[in-house]
Amino acid sequence: MKARRQKTDGQTTGAKTDRILLAHGSGGVLSHELIHSLFARHFYNSKTSPILDNLRTETVRGDAAVLQSLPPGNVALTTDSYVVKPLFFPGGDIGKLAICGTVNDLAVAGATPLYLSAGFILEEGLPMDILERVVISMTQTSHAAGVQIVTGDTKVVEHGAADGLFINTAGIGIIASDTQNPIVLTPANLRAGDVLLINGTVGDHGVAVMTQREELSFGSALESDCAPLNGLIAVLLSAVPGAVRCMRDATRGGIATVLNEWAEAGVGIEIEEEAIPVREEVRAVCEFLGLDPLYAANEGKVVIAVASEAAETALAALRSHPLGENAAVIGHVTAEHAGRVVLRTPYGARRILLMLTGAQLPRIC
Amino acid sequence: MKARRQKTDGQTTGAKTDRILLAHGSGGVLSHELIHSLFARHFYNSKTSPILDNLRTETVRGDAAVLQSLPPGNVALTTDSYVVKPLFFPGGDIGKLAICGTVNDLAVAGATPLYLSAGFILEEGLPMDILERVVISMTQTSHAAGVQIVTGDTKVVEHGAADGLFINTAGIGIIASDTQNPIVLTPANLRAGDVLLINGTVGDHGVAVMTQREELSFGSALESDCAPLNGLIAVLLSAVPGAVRCMRDATRGGIATVLNEWAEAGVGIEIEEEAIPVREEVRAVCEFLGLDPLYAANEGKVVIAVASEAAETALAALRSHPLGENAAVIGHVTAEHAGRVVLRTPYGARRILLMLTGAQLPRIC
Repeated sequence: MKARRQKTDGQTTGAKTDRILLAHGSGGVLSHELIHSLFARHFYNSKTSPILDNLRTETVRGDAAVLQSLPPGNVALTTDSYVVKPLFFPGGDIGKLAICGTVNDLAVAGATPLYLSAGFILEEGLPMDILERVVISMTQTSHAAGVQIVTGDTKVVEHGAADGLFINTAGIGIIASDTQNPIVLTPANLRAGDVLLINGTVGDHGVAVMTQREELSFGSALESDCAPLNGLIAVLLSAVPGAVRCMRDATRGGIATVLNEWAEAGVGIEIEEEAIPVREEVRAVCEFLGLDPLYAANEGKVVIAVASEAAETALAALRSHPLGENAAVIGHVTAEHAGRVVLRTPYGARRILLMLTGAQLPRIC
Repeated sequence: MKARRQKTDGQTTGAKTDRILLAHGSGGVLSHELIHSLFARHFYNSKTSPILDNLRTETVRGDAAVLQSLPPGNVALTTDSYVVKPLFFPGGDIGKLAICGTVNDLAVAGATPLYLSAGFILEEGLPMDILERVVISMTQTSHAAGVQIVTGDTKVVEHGAADGLFINTAGIGIIASDTQNPIVLTPANLRAGDVLLINGTVGDHGVAVMTQREELSFGSALESDCAPLNGLIAVLLSAVPGAVRCMRDATRGGIATVLNEWAEAGVGIEIEEEAIPVREEVRAVCEFLGLDPLYAANEGKVVIAVASEAAETALAALRSHPLGENAAVIGHVTAEHAGRVVLRTPYGARRILLMLTGAQLPRIC
């Protein structure tokens, strides 16, 4: 009996390599090795789980994970791709970002994030230890956020056809339906008088990535704020049940863009410039480079609209959590100038804050 | 009152462009235009739906879609990224592939595919009409498959940092739980005597993409088999309830790789070479290029294991569907040579069919 195998590109079966080869995306032997020796090894959770057993045995093609015990409620689904450059930056990396971003998209919809998928697009030649550092970071961040990576996929493209490593995560969460007031968070809920809050300083992520990318040194500890916000948001929602109108994590385009999207729902928005928390270092870098922290990306900041009578309690709830210690009231919703965001400066001037019109910083997430 | 907006890269607000700019990934004005004028316009379904209303109004960041009326059953989650080259090929394109691949991953798990997410990574300079053709193809294919695209995300990277266009789709489906026999399809179900079937000819996708890529002309109508298999699989499952052990769509690595993965579950597999349907044109191209159709990718083929007593009914059910008219019994599961796939040739010889060991065709899907 003679063995028959397909022609190969010269890669010996089972060889360990220190770089990603095209064959790691073939669906064949090297694909399986990559899953078992890297993805499943890290993503696998020691808790016995039929879901994770599925991950352990599935192929690189990404067969479906079966989620056998979802809690009651509406299912929320979201996705984001991550192309941040560089892959590692102060306070985070593309892997941490890929978990936090998708967790946060679910959390701001009022959902409890539960399960994520992870799709990798790898450039041929990517050092294996870079990929492993990213996978370890994803594992640690998903543990911190209390979510599980249950299914995945890997593709490899030729050297030069991608820039190192891109990640897509999709996530599902549950919006609890067992309360008297099912959570439906949308800008359509906004009413004149609602109070606007943020859980801390703005612009940290954008400025940290940019200074890293441009190899600028400002002699200070600029760090991305990249963090999973589901814990903070759970504290907030239980502190002021039924009072949160709308939430949005202020990523690309910054808080200015979030507020403009909300104004498009047909309300006016007024913001106090002085009330918006900005780190001194971030302000300095922005001034140096002609940027505006209100348009800079965040990866751990949520803009929140609450009914005015709940604002004080909401602020206290945010400040009780480590990710909200610099929380602040930044403005309110008005009946005037519907569709517009107006910024009041410390000197009493009023300016219209427009939506971001160009690409402030490409590949910020 | 003076308007304040962030510095731009020179792109005029609201300008229509015929190519993708970095600003289309900024989260700002051009991102919103792209969503409303392209993605939402095509993906939006005329049927009134709270889910699709969400897509229409969501930002490019991909806020979560809320799925308010999932039928009872276990939720299945899957993901795949698509990097096929070229973007268009006979019988399909990257958009059609991105819908079919994820629909099929859910269907072979026994799930009814319902909702998809779509994440785009675009290269700066990509012609807008290329993107629109892909989006239209995704729309048509999702309608044909009976699934809805409910959330999405777009990133743009600099010219040279990606190869035109990559797509990730994640999908969720429901595995019905209201039957006496809940469907749990896994290679662990395989038993000696089980019969193996395929719904048609193998290798069509891999060969069609490769001849297109290499600009080879074989003077014949080679076409990808790219198709959503959920309709065919629903027919099969209701024809032989409880009798299907395991299914797998044979994409990268071909049917040889699927069968090897199944053998790893601890059974032997025996295949009749002559029984495997292969188009004459595909066989000719493979011979010319030294490829093996058993390792070539498919995008509309499913390998099925059924209890032997149900094999005849299963075959008839497959053949009753347009996507199964060339269905065939190709082999069976044995107690002998556990862990190995053995191919019997027309001349009575027996060969071991190994898993794909190299990268037969990179970027085939």
